[in-house]
Amino acid sequence: MFRQVTIIGPGLLGGSLSLAVKKMDLSEELVIWARSEKSVNKAAQTFPFARIEKGLEESVRGSDLIIICTPVETIGDILKQIKPFLGENSLVTDVGSIKGSICNIAQETLGDSMASFIGSHPMAGAEKSGMEFSDPMLFMNRACILTPLDKVKESDLLSLRKFWEKMGMVVQILDPTSHDKIIADLSHLPHLISSILAHSLAEIQEEAQKLGGQGLADTTRIAEGDANLWSNILLENKKNLIPALQKFKRSLDSVELSLEEGDIDKLRDFLEDGKEFRHSLQSK
Amino acid sequence: MFRQVTIIGPGLLGGSLSLAVKKMDLSEELVIWARSEKSVNKAAQTFPFARIEKGLEESVRGSDLIIICTPVETIGDILKQIKPFLGENSLVTDVGSIKGSICNIAQETLGDSMASFIGSHPMAGAEKSGMEFSDPMLFMNRACILTPLDKVKESDLLSLRKFWEKMGMVVQILDPTSHDKIIADLSHLPHLISSILAHSLAEIQEEAQKLGGQGLADTTRIAEGDANLWSNILLENKKNLIPALQKFKRSLDSVELSLEEGDIDKLRDFLEDGKEFRHSLQSK
Repeated sequence: MFRQVTIIGPGLLGGSLSLAVKKMDLSEELVIWARSEKSVNKAAQTFPFARIEKGLEESVRGSDLIIICTPVETIGDILKQIKPFLGENSLVTDVGSIKGSICNIAQETLGDSMASFIGSHPMAGAEKSGMEFSDPMLFMNRACILTPLDKVKESDLLSLRKFWEKMGMVVQILDPTSHDKIIADLSHLPHLISSILAHSLAEIQEEAQKLGGQGLADTTRIAEGDANLWSNILLENKKNLIPALQKFKRSLDSVELSLEEGDIDKLRDFLEDGKEFRHSLQSK
Repeated sequence: MFRQVTIIGPGLLGGSLSLAVKKMDLSEELVIWARSEKSVNKAAQTFPFARIEKGLEESVRGSDLIIICTPVETIGDILKQIKPFLGENSLVTDVGSIKGSICNIAQETLGDSMASFIGSHPMAGAEKSGMEFSDPMLFMNRACILTPLDKVKESDLLSLRKFWEKMGMVVQILDPTSHDKIIADLSHLPHLISSILAHSLAEIQEEAQKLGGQGLADTTRIAEGDANLWSNILLENKKNLIPALQKFKRSLDSVELSLEEGDIDKLRDFLEDGKEFRHSLQSK
């Protein structure tokens, strides 16, 4: 499908992508860029089928698809560094969970280059991070949002779409601004709420914690995500996240009042509304 | 283990208990009480190994263990109705997720009877309700809290403990007041927060909902629980739930401030605290 694919940053997503590219046979050659000596060695052991590079130039030269899998706050810098080495058929994407700022930076940085950029947000992940948890099936049946800018070539969009579909993903196209707003509601708010819940329970005695059941485990699962990664994501999307949090607070205030007043009908209706929303979700 | 066990109310918990009693061979005879004609017929089909009764007297007479599996707000009434038919060796328990009020009612109701009451809270459940989802393995490796009152016989406590352990449960003993406080934090608050999150997202357009990922599915899973059942549970424990909600709000206010101020260090520390709590949980 591609002649040469480069994965920049073999964390959980980059590592899983590497395994999937190999498994689904999506590229003749696979190049992985890792920053530190330690990661280079670990990647060489974990992905013996790939060429591992420590230099960005060597890793992107000659690649027709470059996927930046480093944390969101580093993507602008990586784009600047790889720009001189991109070919005219190079298609660049990323896997960041915010798209507005990344697409703006990409447009500014690559605007006068022949290379093309399309933002990707594969909605797959796990509480664990690190290449040792890589899994080629991580993307199966999950949504992937592509956020092309106006000047993007149809053929590039089509081949990127096919790439993610081969991973088993269900691809949707959105503009970067709508993406960030929707994802604030559907991903960043749930993450923040899960962390707030876990934070508010942090002082519970160890003996009592043992009594936590499946409900507690489920609601706090994503709070175990990487704190550094997520603090950057949440801040980067605060423009949309804060209004989502305000909406959550209005719901909280209303249910608190029903509790205080002992109004069982209002409380039941409230729970019923939430139940209906949950029931309508496709991801279970 | 027992000569005759009675399950009052074959919903998800009562039905799963019935299957487990049969599977683990914990009683020579099993009696199930169901209220409506429809439930009696359905129970007869689902649990062909049990005697199904529509009268409370016939269902509890001669039983050495009676397990009330009806909604929390009905337990007091059931206790009053079955009291005349309990034998001097009858041990009565329930499966309600609040224990203070239930144990008080039991003490008042059965105080002058020879029958013994010990509250049970098997922390097992599912979003689904109804006997058709019954599963004998529902209790495996889950916690079960027993809340004996002072006058309880050691031998009764021991045999009830063994009963739940045979189901695969890890039994802990707590006084009813401590139970309700701990469970407000570990079960009722997470349930309420999950519902608030689902409620606050209820107006999202259907097209966008499709983009919800695993994080949203996990955090809102318990919001799909039975609204009638849960509105009663939450209200019954509002004395402990409202302070737990206040604590949650303090955590929320603090993280909101970090977001507004763009303070990445404070935000990361906050997420880190939540992560640590989640990491320490035994139920994953």
